[in-house]
Amino acid sequence: MAEEKPAVTEETPAAKEKPAVKEKPAAENVVFIGIKPVMNYVLAVITQFNMGTGDVILKARGKAISRAVDVAEITRNRFLQGLKVQNILIGTEEVQGERGATNVSTVEIVLGRGK
Amino acid sequence: MAEEKPAVTEETPAAKEKPAVKEKPAAENVVFIGIKPVMNYVLAVITQFNMGTGDVILKARGKAISRAVDVAEITRNRFLQGLKVQNILIGTEEVQGERGATNVSTVEIVLGRGK
Repeated sequence: MAEEKPAVTEETPAAKEKPAVKEKPAAENVVFIGIKPVMNYVLAVITQFNMGTGDVILKARGKAISRAVDVAEITRNRFLQGLKVQNILIGTEEVQGERGATNVSTVEIVLGRGK
Repeated sequence: MAEEKPAVTEETPAAKEKPAVKEKPAAENVVFIGIKPVMNYVLAVITQFNMGTGDVILKARGKAISRAVDVAEITRNRFLQGLKVQNILIGTEEVQGERGATNVSTVEIVLGRGK
Protein backbone atom coordinates (compact mmCIF):
# COMPACT_ATOMS: atom_id res chain seq x y z
CA MET A 1 0.00 0.00 0.00
CA ALA A 2 1.82 3.07 -1.22
CA GLU A 3 0.90 5.89 1.03
CA GLU A 4 0.55 9.27 -0.45
CA LYS A 5 2.81 11.74 1.14
CA PRO A 6 1.26 14.91 2.30
CA ALA A 7 3.29 17.44 0.40
CA VAL A 8 2.30 20.19 2.74
CA THR A 9 5.12 20.01 5.20
CA GLU A 10 7.86 19.93 2.62
CA GLU A 11 10.21 22.84 2.51
CA THR A 12 9.89 24.99 -0.52
CA PRO A 13 12.85 24.95 -2.89
CA ALA A 14 13.44 28.65 -2.27
CA ALA A 15 13.85 28.05 1.43
CA LYS A 16 16.42 25.35 0.82
CA GLU A 17 18.51 27.43 -1.50
CA LYS A 18 19.36 30.11 1.04
CA PRO A 19 19.90 28.65 4.48
CA ALA A 20 23.06 30.70 5.15
CA VAL A 21 21.65 33.95 6.46
CA LYS A 22 19.65 33.35 9.58
CA GLU A 23 17.71 36.44 10.49
CA LYS A 24 15.35 36.69 13.38
CA PRO A 25 11.80 36.97 12.10
CA ALA A 26 10.96 40.62 11.71
CA ALA A 27 7.56 42.15 12.05
CA GLU A 28 5.84 42.36 8.69
CA ASN A 29 5.96 46.12 8.48
CA VAL A 30 9.68 46.50 9.15
CA VAL A 31 12.13 47.16 6.32
CA PHE A 32 15.79 46.74 7.24
CA ILE A 33 17.99 49.10 5.27
CA GLY A 34 21.36 47.66 4.29
CA ILE A 35 23.83 48.11 1.48
CA LYS A 36 21.57 47.45 -1.51
CA PRO A 37 20.62 50.26 -3.88
CA VAL A 38 18.16 52.72 -2.42
CA MET A 39 15.42 51.92 -4.92
CA ASN A 40 15.25 48.31 -3.75
CA TYR A 41 14.14 49.51 -0.33
CA VAL A 42 11.82 52.14 -1.79
CA LEU A 43 10.10 49.36 -3.71
CA ALA A 44 9.84 47.26 -0.55
CA VAL A 45 8.16 50.14 1.28
CA ILE A 46 5.73 50.81 -1.56
CA THR A 47 4.86 47.12 -1.68
CA GLN A 48 4.13 47.12 2.06
CA PHE A 49 1.76 50.04 1.75
CA ASN A 50 0.06 48.56 -1.31
CA MET A 51 -0.63 45.42 0.71
CA GLY A 52 -2.60 47.62 3.08
CA THR A 53 -0.09 48.13 5.86
CA GLY A 54 -0.91 51.16 8.00
CA ASP A 55 2.64 52.14 8.73
CA VAL A 56 6.09 50.93 7.78
CA ILE A 57 9.18 51.13 9.97
CA LEU A 58 12.58 51.62 8.36
CA LYS A 59 15.45 50.35 10.48
CA ALA A 60 19.12 51.00 9.83
CA ARG A 61 22.48 50.97 11.58
CA GLY A 62 25.77 52.75 11.06
CA LYS A 63 26.43 54.09 7.60
CA ALA A 64 23.11 52.77 6.31
CA ILE A 65 21.33 55.44 8.35
CA SER A 66 21.73 58.03 5.59
CA ARG A 67 20.30 55.53 3.13
CA ALA A 68 17.27 55.04 5.36
CA VAL A 69 16.61 58.77 5.21
CA ASP A 70 16.99 58.64 1.43
CA VAL A 71 14.44 55.82 1.27
CA ALA A 72 11.96 57.76 3.37
CA GLU A 73 12.39 60.95 1.37
CA ILE A 74 12.26 59.35 -2.07
CA THR A 75 9.21 57.30 -1.15
CA ARG A 76 7.18 60.21 0.12
CA ASN A 77 8.34 62.80 -2.43
CA ARG A 78 8.16 60.73 -5.58
CA PHE A 79 5.84 57.80 -5.03
CA LEU A 80 3.43 58.08 -2.11
CA GLN A 81 2.70 61.76 -1.64
CA GLY A 82 0.29 61.28 1.24
CA LEU A 83 2.97 59.67 3.35
CA LYS A 84 4.03 61.29 6.62
CA VAL A 85 7.07 60.75 8.80
CA GLN A 86 5.31 59.88 12.02
CA ASN A 87 8.29 59.31 14.26
CA ILE A 88 12.06 59.06 14.18
CA LEU A 89 14.03 57.35 16.93
CA ILE A 90 17.78 57.15 17.29
CA GLY A 91 19.72 54.82 19.54
CA THR A 92 22.89 52.88 20.12
CA GLU A 93 23.55 49.15 19.85
CA GLU A 94 26.55 47.14 20.93
CA VAL A 95 28.00 45.02 18.18
CA GLN A 96 30.57 42.26 18.65
CA GLY A 97 33.41 42.92 16.26
CA GLU A 98 36.82 41.36 15.82
CA ARG A 99 38.38 43.62 18.41
CA GLY A 100 35.68 43.36 21.04
CA ALA A 101 32.44 45.23 21.35
CA THR A 102 31.85 48.46 19.51
CA ASN A 103 28.90 50.79 19.56
CA VAL A 104 26.90 51.52 16.48
CA SER A 105 24.16 54.09 16.04
CA THR A 106 20.71 53.02 14.96
CA VAL A 107 17.67 54.74 13.52
CA GLU A 108 13.99 53.88 13.20
CA ILE A 109 11.86 55.92 10.85
CA VAL A 110 8.11 55.34 11.08
CA LEU A 111 6.25 56.15 7.88
CA GLY A 112 2.47 56.30 7.81
CA ARG A 113 -0.36 57.49 5.65
CA GLY A 114 -1.45 61.02 6.46
CA LYS A 115 -4.79 61.41 8.13
CA MET B 1 49.57 90.63 32.48
CA ALA B 2 49.38 88.39 29.52
CA GLU B 3 45.80 87.28 29.58
CA GLU B 4 44.74 84.48 27.43
CA LYS B 5 42.09 85.48 24.99
CA PRO B 6 38.76 83.82 25.43
CA ALA B 7 38.42 83.67 21.63
CA VAL B 8 34.81 82.70 22.01
CA THR B 9 32.92 85.09 19.79
CA GLU B 10 35.82 86.06 17.58
CA GLU B 11 36.44 84.39 14.32
CA THR B 12 39.09 81.79 14.63
CA PRO B 13 42.10 82.01 12.31
CA ALA B 14 40.96 78.80 10.74
CA ALA B 15 37.75 80.49 9.71
CA LYS B 16 39.66 83.29 8.03
CA GLU B 17 41.97 80.99 6.18
CA LYS B 18 39.17 79.36 4.33
CA PRO B 19 37.01 82.06 2.76
CA ALA B 20 36.34 79.96 -0.34
CA VAL B 21 33.26 78.23 0.98
CA LYS B 22 30.65 80.86 1.60
CA GLU B 23 28.09 79.62 4.04
CA LYS B 24 25.15 81.62 5.15
CA PRO B 25 25.57 82.74 8.74
CA ALA B 26 24.22 80.05 10.98
CA ALA B 27 22.45 80.54 14.25
CA GLU B 28 24.78 80.16 17.20
CA ASN B 29 23.28 76.93 18.36
CA VAL B 30 23.63 75.09 15.04
CA VAL B 31 26.42 72.59 14.47
CA PHE B 32 26.89 71.54 10.85
CA ILE B 33 28.11 67.98 10.59
CA GLY B 34 30.57 67.36 7.77
CA ILE B 35 33.46 65.04 7.09
CA LYS B 36 35.61 65.71 10.16
CA PRO B 37 36.06 63.08 12.87
CA VAL B 38 32.99 62.57 15.02
CA MET B 39 34.67 63.77 18.21
CA ASN B 40 35.26 67.23 16.73
CA TYR B 41 31.53 67.72 16.50
CA VAL B 42 30.87 66.15 19.88
CA LEU B 43 33.25 68.71 21.37
CA ALA B 44 31.47 71.53 19.52
CA VAL B 45 28.13 70.42 20.96
CA ILE B 46 29.51 70.14 24.50
CA THR B 47 31.05 73.60 24.16
CA GLN B 48 27.68 75.03 23.11
CA PHE B 49 25.91 73.56 26.11
CA ASN B 50 28.68 74.69 28.46
CA MET B 51 28.18 78.25 27.21
CA GLY B 52 24.63 78.00 28.45
CA THR B 53 22.79 77.23 25.21
CA GLY B 54 19.39 75.72 25.84
CA ASP B 55 19.35 73.46 22.83
CA VAL B 56 21.71 72.61 20.01
CA ILE B 57 20.68 71.68 16.48
CA LEU B 58 22.79 69.24 14.50
CA LYS B 59 22.41 69.62 10.75
CA ALA B 60 23.75 67.22 8.16
CA ARG B 61 23.26 66.24 4.53
CA GLY B 62 23.85 63.10 2.52
CA LYS B 63 26.33 60.64 3.92
CA ALA B 64 27.06 62.88 6.91
CA ILE B 65 23.61 62.04 8.27
CA SER B 66 24.87 58.87 9.95
CA ARG B 67 27.67 60.88 11.53
CA ALA B 68 25.14 63.35 12.92
CA VAL B 69 23.36 60.47 14.65
CA ASP B 70 26.72 59.29 16.02
CA VAL B 71 27.40 62.77 17.40
CA ALA B 72 24.01 62.90 19.11
CA GLU B 73 24.38 59.43 20.60
CA ILE B 74 27.97 59.83 21.79
CA THR B 75 27.24 63.22 23.33
CA ARG B 76 24.25 62.08 25.31
CA ASN B 77 25.55 58.62 26.25
CA ARG B 78 29.08 59.51 27.23
CA PHE B 79 29.28 63.20 28.08
CA LEU B 80 25.98 64.91 28.85
CA GLN B 81 23.72 62.30 30.34
CA GLY B 82 20.81 64.68 30.93
CA LEU B 83 20.54 65.41 27.23
CA LYS B 84 17.37 64.53 25.33
CA VAL B 85 16.67 64.22 21.65
CA GLN B 86 13.85 66.73 21.41
CA ASN B 87 13.09 66.50 17.73
CA ILE B 88 14.35 64.96 14.51
CA LEU B 89 13.39 66.31 11.11
CA ILE B 90 14.29 64.88 7.74
CA GLY B 91 14.01 66.63 4.39
CA THR B 92 15.34 66.98 0.88
CA GLU B 93 17.46 69.73 -0.65
CA GLU B 94 18.32 70.38 -4.25
CA VAL B 95 22.03 70.68 -4.84
CA GLN B 96 23.64 71.97 -8.03
CA GLY B 97 26.16 69.43 -9.17
CA GLU B 98 28.24 69.08 -12.32
CA ARG B 99 25.50 67.21 -14.08
CA GLY B 100 22.62 69.45 -13.07
CA ALA B 101 20.56 69.44 -9.92
CA THR B 102 20.47 66.44 -7.68
CA ASN B 103 18.51 65.84 -4.53
CA VAL B 104 20.20 65.21 -1.24
CA SER B 105 18.60 64.16 2.03
CA THR B 106 18.97 66.33 5.10
CA VAL B 107 18.52 65.84 8.80
CA GLU B 108 18.10 68.14 11.79
CA ILE B 109 18.52 66.70 15.26
CA VAL B 110 17.52 68.98 18.13
CA LEU B 111 19.29 68.19 21.40
CA GLY B 112 18.18 69.79 24.64
CA ARG B 113 18.62 69.44 28.35
CA GLY B 114 16.00 67.23 29.90
CA LYS B 115 13.45 68.94 32.10
